[in-house]
Amino acid sequence: MKINSVEIEDTFAEAFPIKISRVLITAVTEHWALEAAREATGFGTSVIGCPSEAGIECIVSGDDTPDGRPGVYIQICNMSYKNLEASLLNRIGQCILTAPTTSAFNGLPEAENQFDTGKKLSFFGDGYQKMMDNYFGRKVWKIPIISGDFIVEQAMGAVDGIAGGNFYILGQNQMAALVAAEAAVDAIRKIKGTITPFPGGVVASGSKVGSRYKGLKASTNTAFCASLREDGVCVLTEDVSAIYEIVINGINRQAIEESMRAGINAACKVPGILRVSAANFEGKLGPHQFKLHDILA
Amino acid sequence: MKINSVEIEDTFAEAFPIKISRVLITAVTEHWALEAAREATGFGTSVIGCPSEAGIECIVSGDDTPDGRPGVYIQICNMSYKNLEASLLNRIGQCILTAPTTSAFNGLPEAENQFDTGKKLSFFGDGYQKMMDNYFGRKVWKIPIISGDFIVEQAMGAVDGIAGGNFYILGQNQMAALVAAEAAVDAIRKIKGTITPFPGGVVASGSKVGSRYKGLKASTNTAFCASLREDGVCVLTEDVSAIYEIVINGINRQAIEESMRAGINAACKVPGILRVSAANFEGKLGPHQFKLHDILA
Amino acid sequence: MKINSVEIEDTFAEAFPIKISRVLITAVTEHWALEAAREATGFGTSVIGCPSEAGIECIVSGDDTPDGRPGVYIQICNMSYKNLEASLLNRIGQCILTAPTTSAFNGLPEAENQFDTGKKLSFFGDGYQKMMDNYFGRKVWKIPIISGDFIVEQAMGAVDGIAGGNFYILGQNQMAALVAAEAAVDAIRKIKGTITPFPGGVVASGSKVGSRYKGLKASTNTAFCASLREDGVCVLTEDVSAIYEIVINGINRQAIEESMRAGINAACKVPGILRVSAANFEGKLGPHQFKLHDILA
Amino acid sequence: MKINSVEIEDTFAEAFPIKISRVLITAVTEHWALEAAREATGFGTSVIGCPSEAGIECIVSGDDTPDGRPGVYIQICNMSYKNLEASLLNRIGQCILTAPTTSAFNGLPEAENQFDTGKKLSFFGDGYQKMMDNYFGRKVWKIPIISGDFIVEQAMGAVDGIAGGNFYILGQNQMAALVAAEAAVDAIRKIKGTITPFPGGVVASGSKVGSRYKGLKASTNTAFCASLREDGVCVLTEDVSAIYEIVINGINRQAIEESMRAGINAACKVPGILRVSAANFEGKLGPHQFKLHDILA
Repeated sequence: MKINSVEIEDTFAEAFPIKISRVLITAVTEHWALEAAREATGFGTSVIGCPSEAGIECIVSGDDTPDGRPGVYIQICNMSYKNLEASLLNRIGQCILTAPTTSAFNGLPEAENQFDTGKKLSFFGDGYQKMMDNYFGRKVWKIPIISGDFIVEQAMGAVDGIAGGNFYILGQNQMAALVAAEAAVDAIRKIKGTITPFPGGVVASGSKVGSRYKGLKASTNTAFCASLREDGVCVLTEDVSAIYEIVINGINRQAIEESMRAGINAACKVPGILRVSAANFEGKLGPHQFKLHDILA
Repeated sequence: MKINSVEIEDTFAEAFPIKISRVLITAVTEHWALEAAREATGFGTSVIGCPSEAGIECIVSGDDTPDGRPGVYIQICNMSYKNLEASLLNRIGQCILTAPTTSAFNGLPEAENQFDTGKKLSFFGDGYQKMMDNYFGRKVWKIPIISGDFIVEQAMGAVDGIAGGNFYILGQNQMAALVAAEAAVDAIRKIKGTITPFPGGVVASGSKVGSRYKGLKASTNTAFCASLREDGVCVLTEDVSAIYEIVINGINRQAIEESMRAGINAACKVPGILRVSAANFEGKLGPHQFKLHDILA
Repeated sequence: MKINSVEIEDTFAEAFPIKISRVLITAVTEHWALEAAREATGFGTSVIGCPSEAGIECIVSGDDTPDGRPGVYIQICNMSYKNLEASLLNRIGQCILTAPTTSAFNGLPEAENQFDTGKKLSFFGDGYQKMMDNYFGRKVWKIPIISGDFIVEQAMGAVDGIAGGNFYILGQNQMAALVAAEAAVDAIRKIKGTITPFPGGVVASGSKVGSRYKGLKASTNTAFCASLREDGVCVLTEDVSAIYEIVINGINRQAIEESMRAGINAACKVPGILRVSAANFEGKLGPHQFKLHDILA
Repeated sequence: MKINSVEIEDTFAEAFPIKISRVLITAVTEHWALEAAREATGFGTSVIGCPSEAGIECIVSGDDTPDGRPGVYIQICNMSYKNLEASLLNRIGQCILTAPTTSAFNGLPEAENQFDTGKKLSFFGDGYQKMMDNYFGRKVWKIPIISGDFIVEQAMGAVDGIAGGNFYILGQNQMAALVAAEAAVDAIRKIKGTITPFPGGVVASGSKVGSRYKGLKASTNTAFCASLREDGVCVLTEDVSAIYEIVINGINRQAIEESMRAGINAACKVPGILRVSAANFEGKLGPHQFKLHDILA
């Protein structure tokens, strides 16, 4: 299979179940909604070493937010609902409540699982917090802060989502692969329901499950390291000299498929891209499989 | 005392000891160094609910980095050296190693305390990592990754620093206080040795030590909430309707003083700013005091 | 009439006819499409002293561009079709052809007026330019350049549009008015068909038609200058201390109305905004009138 | 000669005399100083088709501006002092006077040539403008505008400068050359005295003097177009597939040399760069020569 003369390998991305919450941050300007979103989703690339996975999903105009202000959807992801609830409380409390002019709304109001995160946060008001039953149609807490009032929705929803959707961009050189990765992230940022949690949306250091050292759960994906060619462990053809990976989390299978499709199509338009592949681990990572040829058919 | 007709109150900022590491991230372009820095310093506003405090210190050109590429200094702060070492490992490993084209250098090579963070990270190389004794004058590990090689300095230094340096910007309205806060952060970003760890460098929700609820270590600083005027707990004069706080961490007292001076001077140039104050808590927060009048004399 | 407790004055914006072309710039990433768009629309605030009026209309994803790459729509506006054609040639030739990885497509393929701008630009190829009849459905020229090939559509469309749609944001102070102006521009940027040609989309220096000096076609709108209160020429009530204006050009009346509505609604959500008004000049500027109360009804 | 294994060709950049003015824009925040600077320097890549060449020189903190606010230096360049004076008047009047919160200071107060641009602009005040003899040490005009007062220095200096300093970055593919160009521009932006006037600082379409068509002063530099290899006019070796050019204007020879050195060194650090060259035209463009080997020795 080829897209724009870039070969799409006949392989699949292996992904795993995760719990996901989705928060809609609004602020006085898009700039300040984004500042809050960046802080709230930082240090959130992989649950291996971060307290959660997190990322910016998309930017929305005031037409698509309860309070009519510009907004940014973010996602926060943990392996269990218990840890997710704790993450939500900390990330909203430390990074959105503290950010200028922001409000935090439930990004999954229809979900079955609903945490009372807003209520828990409201105690910061030290007795002066107030519940409002119908703030633009939402049940919220108004917490007095030194810059005004912070509005946070009483409930925050969560769903069974998927983490680790992915594809590999194989480039003639590092810069071609990098710009293609950026183009892929641009495209995925326009799609609702998914995040690319790594820095700038890109993974420079794709890993394999396990390592030769005890206790290290993941290590560099040696088979795909061009710099290990002389060591005999690299399976890449000679023309490939660098790879970037895009990792995608999403609230359901469809969103991830759509994002993989948009991202791969975008990457294949960049000169110097030779092949697109994906990472899988014989089921050691998880049960979900995304076959590239099926998604791109 | 007045600066540009803005009254500087005769008070002081109360701050507390913290342990600080400083990492110099370099990358192929300033853009990618900043992307890595943002991810690595996110979810890092306050040790109350974040795994560490963290922020971007300043941007430097290739003239001021070991490898001649554009760079960004970040700081990571924890209450103990033990937790700081763990934070460093996780934040560099999850957010800089994974970021496109980055290298991570020791930002405090002269410090007495040096962690072997680079060595610990090198195991990600799964046996293919290599030590280099003199990489632009530094002892580093070269770790093969799918996009090329990741370079990380063997040692990462740490010092006894100070957290919680602060000032309050009292505005005629919320937007005046907000733009003044942004102007203050612009000024502080040019100064070496300090960070402003909150979202966009600004605190919307200045807190006091303790609360009426057991187990809640901090709560909204009621005395400075204009919206609590009718509740009788607000001590602000009638003309003030909103406050933003700038919180500053730094590797030493001088850097914090210089940043407070630059930030306050910048804020006082913004129309609609009425007064500058600072937060202190009768020693309940910490032993360090920064008197506004002394700093601005 | 009040929106969010901000008074909307019962007045209208006076606007004038202008000729508008619309170009769709695509590039390898959104970043590079925007860089080209900024250069191509700079020095383009007012036909009084600029060679044309110009601005960024909106950003689109690859789903909405002929070549599937991220895109930015820009508009270029002149008083006559003849000057517009010259402006198009110069701005595309100097600012888009010269920008990395860009292509330039016709943003008004259905318009009656079509210039052969692409053909004229193709001579830069010095004999090596080639016409392609069906490049993603468009008739284009492929011009060899040192970084690859530049693609420009043969025809560029133009329509009779409207310039000078506007509203005034009256603030308690300058910063409130400024942030409200930024919020308004954020909202207008999401809407197709219009641009806000001034710096950052905002006018700091609203003008009136004519002046006391011969030959000066426009001068400061003295009646709305709070700093001229003591001179007796300011008609503003005492509570207003600063105003920013949003000026809107658009390809038709509906687009301007929609943008005025979105922008005013956004501005009225910002604390410290007292009133919204509009500028009109007894017909001396032009025949088009946009009544605020009608638009917001 | 090699830098980081990239061959530096033994050639020179050919440049020509130009007249340059330098304006220091200050604003309430760095963000707004940059917005004004971008508008004021747009449509300013080449005097062939733009009303002037223009660009952002560097960003400075409040420590380095008369009024203590953040600032951006820009340069405006024309072939004659007469045209330069007109350009200054239009670009400052249309793009800086109209921008939120800006002031415009003389960036070359020591130059022999001084225009009275501030005085001419002051008539916009319609009789209410006021001269101030000592505004932070400068003689300025205060012009009342609807958002406050606009401050512009009475005199704006100009010098005999140089345009067209340049180098070519030859890449294995387009993306390598593009990222190297961005890295070069990052480095040059830190240096005082020069601008890179093309979009994002980069030229995608390096030209030669003249063409086969009468009246066309410049055309694509066929000898350096990899896509013309089969046409027999390309002199590039087979390994090169794309080139980006950096064009540099500066207030003196030293500044251009320093910028070329910084830019070339930065580009040579980017993987996939094969060679660095420069454009010259047997003296048909101008008398100034910058030998790469001399500059980099």
